[in-house]
Amino acid sequence: MIEKINLTMLTDFYELTMANGYFEADMKDEIAYFDMFFRKIPDDGGYAIMAGLEQVVHYLSDLKFTDEDIEYLRGKKIFSERFLEYLKNFKFSCDVWAVPEGTPIFPHEPIITVRGPVMQAQFVETMILLLVNHQSLIATKASRIVRAAEGRPIMEFGTRRSHSTTAAIYGARASYIGGCAGTACTIADENFHTPALGTMAHSWVQMFDNEYEAFKAYTKIYPTNATLLVDTYNVLKSGVPAAIKVFKELDPPNKGIRIDSGDITYLTRNARKMLDEAGLEDCKIVISNSLDEYIIRDVLKEGACIDSFGVGERLITAKSEPVFGGVYKLAALEKDGEMIPKIKISENVEKITNPGFKTIWRLFDKDTDRALVDIIALDEEPAPAGEEIEIFDPNAVWKRKTITNFYAKNLREQIFKNGECVYELPALDDIKKYCKEQLELMWDEMKRFENPQTYYVDLSDKLFRLKASMIEAAR
Amino acid sequence: MIEKINLTMLTDFYELTMANGYFEADMKDEIAYFDMFFRKIPDDGGYAIMAGLEQVVHYLSDLKFTDEDIEYLRGKKIFSERFLEYLKNFKFSCDVWAVPEGTPIFPHEPIITVRGPVMQAQFVETMILLLVNHQSLIATKASRIVRAAEGRPIMEFGTRRSHSTTAAIYGARASYIGGCAGTACTIADENFHTPALGTMAHSWVQMFDNEYEAFKAYTKIYPTNATLLVDTYNVLKSGVPAAIKVFKELDPPNKGIRIDSGDITYLTRNARKMLDEAGLEDCKIVISNSLDEYIIRDVLKEGACIDSFGVGERLITAKSEPVFGGVYKLAALEKDGEMIPKIKISENVEKITNPGFKTIWRLFDKDTDRALVDIIALDEEPAPAGEEIEIFDPNAVWKRKTITNFYAKNLREQIFKNGECVYELPALDDIKKYCKEQLELMWDEMKRFENPQTYYVDLSDKLFRLKASMIEAAR
Repeated sequence: MIEKINLTMLTDFYELTMANGYFEADMKDEIAYFDMFFRKIPDDGGYAIMAGLEQVVHYLSDLKFTDEDIEYLRGKKIFSERFLEYLKNFKFSCDVWAVPEGTPIFPHEPIITVRGPVMQAQFVETMILLLVNHQSLIATKASRIVRAAEGRPIMEFGTRRSHSTTAAIYGARASYIGGCAGTACTIADENFHTPALGTMAHSWVQMFDNEYEAFKAYTKIYPTNATLLVDTYNVLKSGVPAAIKVFKELDPPNKGIRIDSGDITYLTRNARKMLDEAGLEDCKIVISNSLDEYIIRDVLKEGACIDSFGVGERLITAKSEPVFGGVYKLAALEKDGEMIPKIKISENVEKITNPGFKTIWRLFDKDTDRALVDIIALDEEPAPAGEEIEIFDPNAVWKRKTITNFYAKNLREQIFKNGECVYELPALDDIKKYCKEQLELMWDEMKRFENPQTYYVDLSDKLFRLKASMIEAAR
Repeated sequence: MIEKINLTMLTDFYELTMANGYFEADMKDEIAYFDMFFRKIPDDGGYAIMAGLEQVVHYLSDLKFTDEDIEYLRGKKIFSERFLEYLKNFKFSCDVWAVPEGTPIFPHEPIITVRGPVMQAQFVETMILLLVNHQSLIATKASRIVRAAEGRPIMEFGTRRSHSTTAAIYGARASYIGGCAGTACTIADENFHTPALGTMAHSWVQMFDNEYEAFKAYTKIYPTNATLLVDTYNVLKSGVPAAIKVFKELDPPNKGIRIDSGDITYLTRNARKMLDEAGLEDCKIVISNSLDEYIIRDVLKEGACIDSFGVGERLITAKSEPVFGGVYKLAALEKDGEMIPKIKISENVEKITNPGFKTIWRLFDKDTDRALVDIIALDEEPAPAGEEIEIFDPNAVWKRKTITNFYAKNLREQIFKNGECVYELPALDDIKKYCKEQLELMWDEMKRFENPQTYYVDLSDKLFRLKASMIEAAR
C-alpha cells in the first residue's frame, strides 16, 4: 500500500457529528445496511468499470483513531468524553459485500454494501465513496480510450496534470485496470507493477547543439528504448531526418519517434513515409498531444500512422466529465433480528432508492456466454434459474422481454465479515485481465462512445413489489 | 505535512532516463534554468491564484532515494551502477524562486524558476507541476465561486467526489486559500486548520420515525450547531415545519436548515417566509446541491434567500475545466559563468517560450494601489522606475499604453539557495488574507466570469529584444 499515513480522519465532518449523535441517542449499535451505487455513467457511456476496492480494504483494515485525533476532536468541544473514549477503542466490526474490481457495472446496482452498527457503517461513507468514485471514474475513462485505439497500446501520461499525488498514483492503477499498457508514473510501477515508460522531454533536445547530437547521445545510452522526441523544432524538416540519420548510423534494436504537437494525421502519415523510404519500417510512431477517445478514433479513421499513444490530462482527470457520482444510502435496518427495508423517496423517480439488503445477478447466454441482463434482487432470494425469465424496465414496466437459455452469476463477493477481511485481493494483472474478459462478454452496441445501447438492469419481482408497496405507503 | 511517505519516485519515468542520460553524457552538472508557467486561465477567467508552493517546499526538502528505490531502478536494467550510486547520495542543491501562494498570476509568467545542475533541475519537474497545477486549479475555482456568493460563506464539501485522498486534503487547503470559509474534510482541518463543519446526512433523518424526532434528537445534542437537513421527504410540507417545531420547542442558540435538492430559488424563498413568520429570523439557510459560480450567481439574482453555500464536486474537481496546464521549460544555461538563454520555437506564437533568467514586476498605481500591469523582465534588469513607462502587448506590439504614477513590486521570492530552504512558509490564514487583499487591488472588470478584461502582461524591452533576436536567429 502506498499511503502509510492514517486516513481515519479523512472523513466528512458530519460522519463524526452523526456518530456522536448515534452514540448519545443510544442508537449506535442499531444494525444498518448502506449501499453504494451510482446513478449515471460518465460521458453518457454504456458501462462503467468498478475499481478502488483494494484501497477500500486497506482503509477499513487500518481504521484507528490516534491520540492526536482524539485530542483534535476534543478541541471541537461538541463531542462527549464517553464518545471520545469509544473512538479510542474503535474497532471496525461490519460486514461488507462488493463487486470485484474490473467488473462492468451499471447505474443503481449496489456495488458495495456495508452492514453493521449504524455508527460504523455510516462513518466509512466518505472514504468508500472517495476511493471507488475516483478509481471507477479513471478505469471507465481508460476503458473508452483503450477501445478507441483498436489494439494499439495506450500509456497513461497524466501525472503532472493529476489532482495531486494519490490522484496520479491510483489514477495510474485504475488506468491499468481499464486497459492501459502502462504509465509514466514511476512510483505506480514501483508499487503496483504498472509498467513505467518514458524517454525524453524537449529540454533534452535543447540541451544539445542540435537534434542529431541529442538523438545520438540518447540512442547510445538506450539502444533498447530509443524513442526520440522529434517535434522540438520542426517534425518533418528536422526531427524525423535527424532521427533517421541516427537510426541508420547506430541501428538500435528498438526504434521509435514521438510527436507531441501539430496535426497528428498529417505528421504521422508523412513521418511514416519518410521512415519507410529510409528502410526503417520497424520504427514505431508514438503520439502524445491532448488525446482522448474521440480524437484517437478520428485520427485513426483519417489514416494516421500510429503505433501507440501517450494519453495525459484528459485521462488522468477524466476531463470530459471528471465526476463519478457514487452515493451511499441507507437501505435497511435490523431490529430484533427482523429486516426493516428503508427507502428514500424523491420527486425524481430516478432518485428513489432500492430498499432492502440486495445483491446483483448477471445472466449470461448459455451458448455465447454473452451478458444478457443484470437483476438486482433481495439477498434472500434464490439465484435466477429455470427455462425462461421475464425481465422488465423498472421505470417502464410495460417494456418486457423474455430471456431463455441463461445461467446466472452473482456479481458480489463478501469482503469483510465481522470486521475481518475474508476476501483475497486479486493481483492487479488478474483484475486487468478479468476486466478485459468481462467486457468481451458485453455487446459492442453498448460500448459505443455516443448513444450506446442501454444494458438491461432489472429488479427482481420481489424487490419491485417491495419497492412499489413502500412508495405507496409513503404517499 | 500530511504525507509522510517518500514521494521522490513520484516522477515521470523520463525524468529518470534523462537524469541517467545526462549522467552518462557527462552533462549532469551543467547549470540549467527551468521555468514553470501556464498558457491559459481555466474557465477563460481573468486571473488565476498561485497555490501549492508549501507542498513543493516539503517535497524538495525531503528528496531522497531509498534502497528500495535504487533496487527497483536496478531491476529496469537500463541505468548504470555509477548513476545508481549517485542517486543513493543524491542531495538537492538547486536555487528556486517562486511567486508566493495566494498571488493572482497570469499566463506566461515564470511563477517558479529552478536553477541548478540540469540533472536535478529537470528531475523535479513532475512533482512541481503536479502540486502547483492541482492547488492553483482549485484555488482559482474557489476564488470564482466565493466571488459569486457576494460575501456569503462557501464551505468546500467535495471530499467524496475528489480524485483520491490528497486531492481532497490539498483541495480543501487550496479552496481555503481561494476564499472558502471551511471544508467538510476533517483531516484537512486537523492538519491545516481549515475549519471543518458538517451536521447530518439523509440517513440520520431516516434512522428516526420522522423528521421531528430526528431533528429533536440532533438539536438536543448540538444546540450550538443545529443545522437540520430538511429535504429528506418534502422540504416545504414536512422538513421546514418539523424544523420550526423543534426550534420553537428547544430554541437552540444557532439555528439553520440545509436544502440539498430541488429548485433553490423557490424553496429558499418559501422556507425563508415560513421561518420568518414563525419568528425564526435568526435561522440560517444553507444550500448544497451541485453548485458552482454560475448557479450561485443566478439564484442570488433570482432572489433566493441563502445565508451560506456548501459546494461539492464542481469545486473539488474544478468540473468545468479540471486541468491547470502549467508546463516546465528550459529557459537558460550557464556555461563558464556566462548566461546562455534558451528558447523553444513553435509554429504557434503563443507557444514560443520566453528565454533567459527572468523575474516578474507588478506595477501599482501610487494613488489607488490598483495593479496596473505585470512586466516579465530579465532578472539582471533593475526595477521598473521613473515618471512613466510605455508598455505593449508582446503579441501585438502596436498596442501601446503609457503608465505613470506607479511603483513596482517584485512578485517572486527566493525559496531555495543551494538546496537549502531560505523561505519562511507563511501561515495558511496569512496566505488566504494576502490572496483576498491582492485580488482587491485588481480591477473588477478582470474578475468577470465571462469575457473578462485581459490583464496586461508585458515583456521588458530588453527581454522582448532578446526574444525577437533569438526567433530571428532560429529561422
